[in-house]
Amino acid sequence: MKNFLLSILCINTLIIKAQYEGYSEDSWSKQLKIEEIFSNEIDKSSFKKHLKKLTERPHVVGSEGNTEVIRYIGQVMDDAGFKVTNYPYDVYLPNKPGNSIIEIVTPSRDILNQKEDIIPDDPFTTDPDLWKGWNAFSGSGDVTAEVVYANYGRKQDFEQLKELGVEIKGKIVIARYGGNFRGYKAKFAEANGASGLIIFTDPQDSGFTRGLVYPEGAFYNSSTIQRGSLLTTDFTGDPLTPFEPALPLDGKKKIKRLDPKDAQLHTIPVTPIGYGEAQKILGQMQGNPVPSSWQGGLPFTYRLEGGSSLTVRLKVDQKIDFVRATNVIGMLKGSESPDEWIILGCHLDSWGFGATDPSSGTAMLLSLSETLGKLNDEGYRPKRSILIGHWDAEEHGVIGSTEWVEQMRDELNAKGVVYMNFDGAVSGKGFGASSAPTLKKLLVEASKDVKYPYTDQTLYQFWNRNNQDEPPIGNLGGGSDHIAFYMHIGVPSMSGGAGGPNVYHSNYDSFRFYERFVDPEFQMGAMVEHMAGLMTLRMANGDLIPYNLNRYASDLKMHISNAESKINLYNKGFDGFSSTSKAIKSLEQTSEKLTQKIQSYLSEGDFSKKELSNLNQQLIGLEKSFISDKGMYFGSWYRSLYASSDPFSGYAAWILPGLEYEIALKSSDRLEEWDSRYSEAVNSLNLKMNELINDLSK
Amino acid sequence: MKNFLLSILCINTLIIKAQYEGYSEDSWSKQLKIEEIFSNEIDKSSFKKHLKKLTERPHVVGSEGNTEVIRYIGQVMDDAGFKVTNYPYDVYLPNKPGNSIIEIVTPSRDILNQKEDIIPDDPFTTDPDLWKGWNAFSGSGDVTAEVVYANYGRKQDFEQLKELGVEIKGKIVIARYGGNFRGYKAKFAEANGASGLIIFTDPQDSGFTRGLVYPEGAFYNSSTIQRGSLLTTDFTGDPLTPFEPALPLDGKKKIKRLDPKDAQLHTIPVTPIGYGEAQKILGQMQGNPVPSSWQGGLPFTYRLEGGSSLTVRLKVDQKIDFVRATNVIGMLKGSESPDEWIILGCHLDSWGFGATDPSSGTAMLLSLSETLGKLNDEGYRPKRSILIGHWDAEEHGVIGSTEWVEQMRDELNAKGVVYMNFDGAVSGKGFGASSAPTLKKLLVEASKDVKYPYTDQTLYQFWNRNNQDEPPIGNLGGGSDHIAFYMHIGVPSMSGGAGGPNVYHSNYDSFRFYERFVDPEFQMGAMVEHMAGLMTLRMANGDLIPYNLNRYASDLKMHISNAESKINLYNKGFDGFSSTSKAIKSLEQTSEKLTQKIQSYLSEGDFSKKELSNLNQQLIGLEKSFISDKGMYFGSWYRSLYASSDPFSGYAAWILPGLEYEIALKSSDRLEEWDSRYSEAVNSLNLKMNELINDLSK
Repeated sequence: MKNFLLSILCINTLIIKAQYEGYSEDSWSKQLKIEEIFSNEIDKSSFKKHLKKLTERPHVVGSEGNTEVIRYIGQVMDDAGFKVTNYPYDVYLPNKPGNSIIEIVTPSRDILNQKEDIIPDDPFTTDPDLWKGWNAFSGSGDVTAEVVYANYGRKQDFEQLKELGVEIKGKIVIARYGGNFRGYKAKFAEANGASGLIIFTDPQDSGFTRGLVYPEGAFYNSSTIQRGSLLTTDFTGDPLTPFEPALPLDGKKKIKRLDPKDAQLHTIPVTPIGYGEAQKILGQMQGNPVPSSWQGGLPFTYRLEGGSSLTVRLKVDQKIDFVRATNVIGMLKGSESPDEWIILGCHLDSWGFGATDPSSGTAMLLSLSETLGKLNDEGYRPKRSILIGHWDAEEHGVIGSTEWVEQMRDELNAKGVVYMNFDGAVSGKGFGASSAPTLKKLLVEASKDVKYPYTDQTLYQFWNRNNQDEPPIGNLGGGSDHIAFYMHIGVPSMSGGAGGPNVYHSNYDSFRFYERFVDPEFQMGAMVEHMAGLMTLRMANGDLIPYNLNRYASDLKMHISNAESKINLYNKGFDGFSSTSKAIKSLEQTSEKLTQKIQSYLSEGDFSKKELSNLNQQLIGLEKSFISDKGMYFGSWYRSLYASSDPFSGYAAWILPGLEYEIALKSSDRLEEWDSRYSEAVNSLNLKMNELINDLSK
Repeated sequence: MKNFLLSILCINTLIIKAQYEGYSEDSWSKQLKIEEIFSNEIDKSSFKKHLKKLTERPHVVGSEGNTEVIRYIGQVMDDAGFKVTNYPYDVYLPNKPGNSIIEIVTPSRDILNQKEDIIPDDPFTTDPDLWKGWNAFSGSGDVTAEVVYANYGRKQDFEQLKELGVEIKGKIVIARYGGNFRGYKAKFAEANGASGLIIFTDPQDSGFTRGLVYPEGAFYNSSTIQRGSLLTTDFTGDPLTPFEPALPLDGKKKIKRLDPKDAQLHTIPVTPIGYGEAQKILGQMQGNPVPSSWQGGLPFTYRLEGGSSLTVRLKVDQKIDFVRATNVIGMLKGSESPDEWIILGCHLDSWGFGATDPSSGTAMLLSLSETLGKLNDEGYRPKRSILIGHWDAEEHGVIGSTEWVEQMRDELNAKGVVYMNFDGAVSGKGFGASSAPTLKKLLVEASKDVKYPYTDQTLYQFWNRNNQDEPPIGNLGGGSDHIAFYMHIGVPSMSGGAGGPNVYHSNYDSFRFYERFVDPEFQMGAMVEHMAGLMTLRMANGDLIPYNLNRYASDLKMHISNAESKINLYNKGFDGFSSTSKAIKSLEQTSEKLTQKIQSYLSEGDFSKKELSNLNQQLIGLEKSFISDKGMYFGSWYRSLYASSDPFSGYAAWILPGLEYEIALKSSDRLEEWDSRYSEAVNSLNLKMNELINDLSK
């Protein structure tokens, strides 16, 4: 304990010396006091209490359990002193599995199980509200066909099958989870003429090969099934209302919706299965052995084709209709700049009990609301407003948050300082984060002031245990509620939290599982709350918004250079994005100058509220330099030139997605156009920074 | 085809231009003609004929099948025109499995199968002479105990078990094949107090995880068992006669033998098993899960301990006694320098039919004998003598070849130019080789003149398909008949051939397996024969022995530098082997000078037979600079300062083994001594080279 205190002192000394970005000396010393009080106010028992309550019942969007969770969240936030608003939408989605059958027809009939085994000493597993495994947005159909194994069902896997001469047309594809967003497995299978798709979790990826299985360990047992959506439209959110909020059908404002026939939905039946049942199909296949990297952990050599003696029936009958989804958003109004919003969020809907995903994030945010509420009551009101969003229908396609962003577009453009996503943020004892460039320093510095439990280390020490220049911070990809904030309207975002092995999207992800394997001593919730709270308070209370402005140029330089290298692999003659590189060079100097200017401005200490407000508005506007009305060629809804999810896999992060798309197509046709669009964006950022320098010099 | 011829022409031009080492211009042009005739004389049907005959019956040392193989080899060599001599020894070894039982005792009795399944359309698998799986040199005993899993049973695995707090004393260890010589698994298990050892082949290492299994593919099925010796004395060869030949007990010369009680033999029972049966034990284990790299391919999480509910009985009753082993050696006497010996070899004993191991090597050597015999008959006698050795009792511990080297020590010291080992040298369609520095160029250059079948490539192009400066040539480790030649008496050696997946040391390694999976078109035998023949003829016919003398210094430099880096990991203060480095620097200059001197000497073309004989004697003596009477601290029988097998794993190669041993012990005590011993050796080599330079200048 002593060591820990010592290191805190050292770190604080260091920070004071360095004057934290955006703070005057006076504000920073106040801030340190607030942070200390905040840290002391955290109620370490609160996370567990909320988690238990939130996970009493399965709470899929539109279910009774979901309604109950929405009520509970609103109640807690309200009690904590937040102004709570519910934002309802009518979203086009399937919120029940419907009917499905997987049956081996020949050589001998065998109807396969589609639901997790009951575990004798886990009462959650007998809950009548638990459903079978299913993939939302499956097509409906009833097919019987031979089978083809397609590894992870990625673009390259289907390409390899073609090269290997494997006929997919009319066959049922069986593919393993992993390697991409599951929706793309369905998209590629359908595009290749498959009549159906069965998705299983391979023991090598998440089962016994990795470690002991539930209930003896945290990995998938033979009956564990990953549920999940298949939605792969070329935008994010409700499939019928791109760019627009899916406001209630019975509301005043009428939103024009696509005809469901024109929505980009899958038509083939798709359903998931555990590896115990998958083995019954895979183990009877008779074709050629797979390429070595396609081999999984089941006890036989995997084959490409089942052959004519093995036929499988796959039936899915899944109804898609309008379902009410409701976001719950609480606001703690800022004392000085209420129209500058620090936004945190996590979704509230789940596939089952959702103990790790999402409810661990929700429970942490509820406890954080209470702590911030207490701080507020004690007079430490945040300067900026703190909004905590609990998004519905995330699991079906990141829908609730996206509809809200589309609804609040203008307000968010003006007020959105930052979005911090905490989806399932207390799911283990590891730690990880992804972030926009301007927020990386915030993450790193906050982690130095947080104690990592079960050790004498700070979170920073634990996170950076490989002693790199910086702990590993990823790029923001797809798969959660930061998408619309960051990739559609350009609010600087981060996503992070504690993770570890868990029974992802299965019926086993219950409070019982959590207290057995995720964190039996319930220490991690308070840690993530401490981290999230420090970041929130630092963003909320800086005189100027504490973006780390130098990071744009250095990150851009690296990403442009990476893109150039990738292009040179297929276009040896390409000699680089000269205009963009030039613009970045200039940006490098400007941002350094701006950073110094901000420092000296803040050290002078004499600034009016109006002055600050004007400067902060400009700071909020910086990231918008990367927002393009034209958007991406793979989908104009993706408007950020800086980041998108990979449109060929759904999950992976694409930085400079305009370029990445050309690279994926091995195309050189539009490189000049992109050099021009990227240099324009960087020059626009440069210009805005210069304007800020001017204003700071007045 | 056209391309291939073109590249051959280019290569030949290049070689003629560069004047091949050891050859005068005149000799080289004669040699090229001989090589062309040799290539045309190869009978491509011969390999298959010999392989079929050699593999009619299992031929373990001392068996009737073995006697038959010895007779056949002698007959073929004799017919080919070789002078054949049999060298008999009486070796102390077990040549039958004896009795053994593996039985799960609790929770419920299950007697495990110890023999390969019969395959319906493979008549070899019903042969009554096939035995159960066994490990020669097991101790005898009958124990019942709990089990502990020890991964590959390597030194580091047992160390990790200790760290993990796993008690081994009294337990039966179950370990998987791979990672070291199996004898060390037994040695370490016994040293750690285990009461017995069961060794299995994991499907991830050689079974279904790797590819289709026999009879559908070339990988181990669930019943395939790797047989093999466990002998781990600190010398190589017969366990009762280190340094001395195990001459027949009834012969004239009496050899003093150790009392078997004093021999370094294992005392615990050890036996191998297939993964189908191993699964019955491993799948019932109840302890903690293993470190992730210890997980294998069976369908459950591997555990460290079985727990008290699982007990296993292991009984082995194996008789060790004197068994007659017989080497068959054929000699084609040299026309000009009969007392300079080019030695080739492969063992003749096997565990079953031994189609790949060893008989593919034997069949190749028999076909080569015939081709060389024809060449000889046509008047193209080799200048030096060519000896082809067929070694017995290799499988039990590299015994036949070692006893012969010990018997012929003085003669070999004077006459042994090179030893080329072809153990199972036609076991697949890949190609690989390991070599002493002076022979690497010989390998590379010969491979340029050999066509690789099934393609238009040369062997060189196939072998060097990654386009490196040199194709991958390994260092000579343990495990075959080059050991005594190279590591005990310092005859420059190489080992190589064609390889691929095969059912190593199992009852399935039959002619049937070979024609199905190894090389159904029987093209590889002739290719390896071509390669071996070119190397043999080049070594046999050079005016001076074509050692590549420059390679000593460059290889030594690299190995010393590697050793220094490894020492610096545990001894930061160590500042290098300065005397040795200095010696190597000097050697570098001397060897370059010597190489030039040899070139100019040969280009003058005027030299007497006596002169050449004197120079060649000196060349033979060079490698002896690395032979130390004191030998290694891990075993004085290992007398080469240059290379040994790793005494902690048995298979891996140790270059500069004096240093490697200190590194393995993390010791710095003897570094000065070694700097002195190594610099002495290098200086001695340098001195000999300088003497050669002087003699060449006369």
